[in-house]
Amino acid sequence: MIVVMQAGADEEQIQQVIDRLVGLGFDIHRSTGVEHTVLGCVGRTIDFDVRDIELLPGVAEAHRISSPYKLVGRAFRPGGTRLQIGPMLVGGDEVAIIAGPCSVESEDQLDRIAAAVAAAGARGLRGGAFKPRTSPYSFQGLGEEGLKILRRVCDRYRLIAVSEVMSETQIPMMLDYVDVLQVGARNMQNFNLLRELGRQRHPVLLKRGISATIEELLLSAEYLLAGGNYDVMLCERGIRTFENYTRNTLDLSAIPVVQKLSHLPILADPSHGTGRRDKVPPMARAAVAAGADGLLMEVHYDPDHALSDGAQTLDLVQFEALMQELRQIAAAVHRQVAPAAAAAVR
Amino acid sequence: MIVVMQAGADEEQIQQVIDRLVGLGFDIHRSTGVEHTVLGCVGRTIDFDVRDIELLPGVAEAHRISSPYKLVGRAFRPGGTRLQIGPMLVGGDEVAIIAGPCSVESEDQLDRIAAAVAAAGARGLRGGAFKPRTSPYSFQGLGEEGLKILRRVCDRYRLIAVSEVMSETQIPMMLDYVDVLQVGARNMQNFNLLRELGRQRHPVLLKRGISATIEELLLSAEYLLAGGNYDVMLCERGIRTFENYTRNTLDLSAIPVVQKLSHLPILADPSHGTGRRDKVPPMARAAVAAGADGLLMEVHYDPDHALSDGAQTLDLVQFEALMQELRQIAAAVHRQVAPAAAAAVR
Amino acid sequence: MIVVMQAGADEEQIQQVIDRLVGLGFDIHRSTGVEHTVLGCVGRTIDFDVRDIELLPGVAEAHRISSPYKLVGRAFRPGGTRLQIGPMLVGGDEVAIIAGPCSVESEDQLDRIAAAVAAAGARGLRGGAFKPRTSPYSFQGLGEEGLKILRRVCDRYRLIAVSEVMSETQIPMMLDYVDVLQVGARNMQNFNLLRELGRQRHPVLLKRGISATIEELLLSAEYLLAGGNYDVMLCERGIRTFENYTRNTLDLSAIPVVQKLSHLPILADPSHGTGRRDKVPPMARAAVAAGADGLLMEVHYDPDHALSDGAQTLDLVQFEALMQELRQIAAAVHRQVAPAAAAAVR
Amino acid sequence: MIVVMQAGADEEQIQQVIDRLVGLGFDIHRSTGVEHTVLGCVGRTIDFDVRDIELLPGVAEAHRISSPYKLVGRAFRPGGTRLQIGPMLVGGDEVAIIAGPCSVESEDQLDRIAAAVAAAGARGLRGGAFKPRTSPYSFQGLGEEGLKILRRVCDRYRLIAVSEVMSETQIPMMLDYVDVLQVGARNMQNFNLLRELGRQRHPVLLKRGISATIEELLLSAEYLLAGGNYDVMLCERGIRTFENYTRNTLDLSAIPVVQKLSHLPILADPSHGTGRRDKVPPMARAAVAAGADGLLMEVHYDPDHALSDGAQTLDLVQFEALMQELRQIAAAVHRQVAPAAAAAVR
Repeated sequence: MIVVMQAGADEEQIQQVIDRLVGLGFDIHRSTGVEHTVLGCVGRTIDFDVRDIELLPGVAEAHRISSPYKLVGRAFRPGGTRLQIGPMLVGGDEVAIIAGPCSVESEDQLDRIAAAVAAAGARGLRGGAFKPRTSPYSFQGLGEEGLKILRRVCDRYRLIAVSEVMSETQIPMMLDYVDVLQVGARNMQNFNLLRELGRQRHPVLLKRGISATIEELLLSAEYLLAGGNYDVMLCERGIRTFENYTRNTLDLSAIPVVQKLSHLPILADPSHGTGRRDKVPPMARAAVAAGADGLLMEVHYDPDHALSDGAQTLDLVQFEALMQELRQIAAAVHRQVAPAAAAAVR
Repeated sequence: MIVVMQAGADEEQIQQVIDRLVGLGFDIHRSTGVEHTVLGCVGRTIDFDVRDIELLPGVAEAHRISSPYKLVGRAFRPGGTRLQIGPMLVGGDEVAIIAGPCSVESEDQLDRIAAAVAAAGARGLRGGAFKPRTSPYSFQGLGEEGLKILRRVCDRYRLIAVSEVMSETQIPMMLDYVDVLQVGARNMQNFNLLRELGRQRHPVLLKRGISATIEELLLSAEYLLAGGNYDVMLCERGIRTFENYTRNTLDLSAIPVVQKLSHLPILADPSHGTGRRDKVPPMARAAVAAGADGLLMEVHYDPDHALSDGAQTLDLVQFEALMQELRQIAAAVHRQVAPAAAAAVR
Repeated sequence: MIVVMQAGADEEQIQQVIDRLVGLGFDIHRSTGVEHTVLGCVGRTIDFDVRDIELLPGVAEAHRISSPYKLVGRAFRPGGTRLQIGPMLVGGDEVAIIAGPCSVESEDQLDRIAAAVAAAGARGLRGGAFKPRTSPYSFQGLGEEGLKILRRVCDRYRLIAVSEVMSETQIPMMLDYVDVLQVGARNMQNFNLLRELGRQRHPVLLKRGISATIEELLLSAEYLLAGGNYDVMLCERGIRTFENYTRNTLDLSAIPVVQKLSHLPILADPSHGTGRRDKVPPMARAAVAAGADGLLMEVHYDPDHALSDGAQTLDLVQFEALMQELRQIAAAVHRQVAPAAAAAVR
Repeated sequence: MIVVMQAGADEEQIQQVIDRLVGLGFDIHRSTGVEHTVLGCVGRTIDFDVRDIELLPGVAEAHRISSPYKLVGRAFRPGGTRLQIGPMLVGGDEVAIIAGPCSVESEDQLDRIAAAVAAAGARGLRGGAFKPRTSPYSFQGLGEEGLKILRRVCDRYRLIAVSEVMSETQIPMMLDYVDVLQVGARNMQNFNLLRELGRQRHPVLLKRGISATIEELLLSAEYLLAGGNYDVMLCERGIRTFENYTRNTLDLSAIPVVQKLSHLPILADPSHGTGRRDKVPPMARAAVAAGADGLLMEVHYDPDHALSDGAQTLDLVQFEALMQELRQIAAAVHRQVAPAAAAAVR
């Protein structure tokens, strides 16, 4: 931390600030200028509130130098993190595609979608079993029964099972069924959930909250790594802004920013990021062009009758066409998307 | 819902839309204009996604008429809700003042603060036991021990105990200690928690999320009332905007807006709303002038050494001076703040 | 400015940064820590882009210490600025009330409104002659004819004439008619206009842009003072956020923030700040409670038929009732509003 | 417009609303439902404020059906607008690249940059002569002398000259020098400027304001077309959000949204959109992948010493490498970027 004293700060005030900083565990480097005295604070302390220092008498400004996170920082693993989850590699040359319906509705429904997305080159299958809905009167998901369906269908097509965990109480049960535990945007700062997930040794996909800064996303990931769980991938899925033509504003610049600040892979979710089906293909292409390590997309054979989020869901034909475009975009940034049909096993 | 067909929509498209709407349970009133056909949809259906209709072929626009909530709407209780919780009445003539430290740190700490805030006219004592912190390396609260302290101190000064519940698993334990279960901004859309709180018959203070619209706040409250728990008060505590001189932007216009749309009482939290101690008094005064039913404020005898949120915490002298100002502001809007010393019992 | 070098920065990089800083006119105080070298930069340079320094090889962070403005800073006039404009004192004990229609529509219209607002205690009369409208097909104002009406009516009731200037080309003409030149939110960063207004010796009311930070508002005011025009008052009128129940979000915390950072008076405009008539009284009261130096409000005898902005315009009865409430709120913060009838002269 | 009456609205209220709507020039289609009466309003009226209707007694809601713009709407020219400006075609198969320094600093500077960007395949040269700066103490541009340099250099390399016009008073002079008059983000709602530009027959590049919705951008363009100037291209350049790691948040979803709503071409400016040099290439690629009709980018041979905006400026080597990447991305979306060297003439 750097503390800049006011032009007129007296020696007593300066000593008070130094005492406080020493108490926090910092070594102090004092630099007395013509107008301002500047205190450079060096140390491993990361738990302090800069505002507390700013409010001390005689202080003009205080700035945190070091980032408030450690384990998720790029410096911790300069080469970047690669997660191998079954046949899916996240953070490597391949752009990982995870697709599927918003909600698991039935085994028939999921099987039909899985067959198509696997054939088109997806590596993972998404499907919600517990649906957090804004209204208490909306469809709330099939629960554990949905997860059993997800597991069976994923095994059938060699797809990675991705599903959202809503509460720390669900974790033990979910570990039996899913390969990647997704933390939704609304739970990005559910610290009880994060702390418990940090104790697992199971991949986690952490979505950015709609009002979370990139720094806050990284701090939430730090909860997971601090607990010992290093198998973490992040996901940009749109932030809330004044523009409401689209449901959210997909912040694609977060992709290169996260890749500079952190070693964790970063995906994009153009379905939630736009909220409108016809905007998903251009934004999916843009995300890959910006360097995304993967995409999470909602796909259904009959979006008009999906039980949730149909408006932002691609149909099977649209998805297959998009996958072909993505292969060309990926090639232009020296990456690839898994070939069509390769993943379909049945 | 009102559905406006495109100028060129043909009869087949119109019939398809009508079929879909009937399937959702609506009665349809069709109005065929020169350019546009308009479909008025009447019914009790509240679980549908307007976007699904907008995407049907031939549809120009679709608008929800009825609000997506029922029980929290003003029409449900035009006279407004009054909550009597021990000596504290929320939603009536008195402006309810709840004050106390961000975190319970020790019995001595809390006793000293409680004595002062009770003497100054506060009706409730706030104190966190489980602290959700952005960084995993920050102080995380005393846990159940903190709640025991809170209970003892509140009994001593006849104050209402207010503390934040972080997860549905904590509810049974917390019911033994606290009078009002607070749901923090980050949990406003933790629907598992809301659903469980809806099953209780215990007052809940629901804070607006930093990126939640007023409608979303009311929908979260609807979860509580839909479960049968009508003892709910809301709290505006600042939204996230581009302005970052203040920690958040306290949206005081939410107070009259909520009072028009809903029968639930609405408080304001100028401590979190500004994040800066010297901005708390003007915004507390402004909230009362705007018609707030109460205030939630952070107070500590030594804010500089508080274990959390000291930067936005008033000291005892500042709090007492503010209470006197609030009495005059309250009088100007035909309300009152409890007299000083009245609440102090010891 | 404070520059923090990266942990591994070598001596050559450090020298390069120092050379650059010296070239910008700074004196450098170097502090070599165990991990980081810190460079404190002292000097009068205020025109530099911090990002340029951050991008130099080996630099971890750079922070501006001094504020980028000088003349508008509180330190320049610690006692605050008071503007006496005819009978209206802005920045003193009185809360200055400026009221009137959005647009001047006719002499009859303005006369009738002026008589009422003067009788209720307003000191200034607002009325637009050039209406900047989002749509090219909306009413665009009466032009110079409207200003002549405004001047005559103000003289009749001893009111201060306030009207918006849209372009530097209009300034000479407007000086003949108006006492206070208002710069609208959309022109807050129209630097050609600001530069020309800086050359005048005529009071200016500068409104905050809907997406302007407080710092940017102060920098725009700096353009005026740098040109020699010190008769400047600021106005908070709502910022754009994700919440769209209200037209804008009135950021009342900007009032105490501006009063700490600057010596310039700050008003609030609850009409534009909320966009809804029924929200104007609570937010007007809140603004005075928060310490506003004045209010700017839209008033019309028949808001439903006003040619612009009727939805946010108070009628005469509502305005008069509000003025009585404001008197009580003002008293609670040790200020006053001019007595009713006092200002009416005719 | 559709007006929904409240459940309890009486006949008198309904008639009052109908009278008002008829007065606005609408034909009314009344639909009396069990609970709600719905009024469908058909007509060519586009200048009305929906809020005025919402405030009438008995009205529950009012919704605008038709878009508030006419000439910029896609329906006006379903095939889209193509602008041929010298050798540059905007809105066709080619992705138009306009590059150059933030400010014209000298003829040598601009010549050197122009030679490089022309050789790399750019069709247009940007260069500011009047620099709107947040601080009055920053470099303000070379003025008309800068435009003369821009003209000479563009002629030398057959590049299209693009420069920003700050005020309607500058238009006649600028027509002598520039091929495309750029309206900056801060002037997007400078309606005096827009109205005057509408009277010209000269291409205009209109940038989206940092707090402007897409609808507002289109309404500003409507000012130009309503005046008779149809040679308009739009530009997304980042909006202001709570995220401040990047200078703005580049809203790439605006590209497909504008292409659906309007026939006007839409470019992207990744330099201003990110504010950081290293984020320009990924976002430039993303913009082309999302379907942008062109790019506007800041390029300088020595960005570290550019007089303005160096932090977001690419150097010549970076620009040339990016152009090669863009060619591959463009091919993936069935478009092309002009070949390297083709444009260099000298």
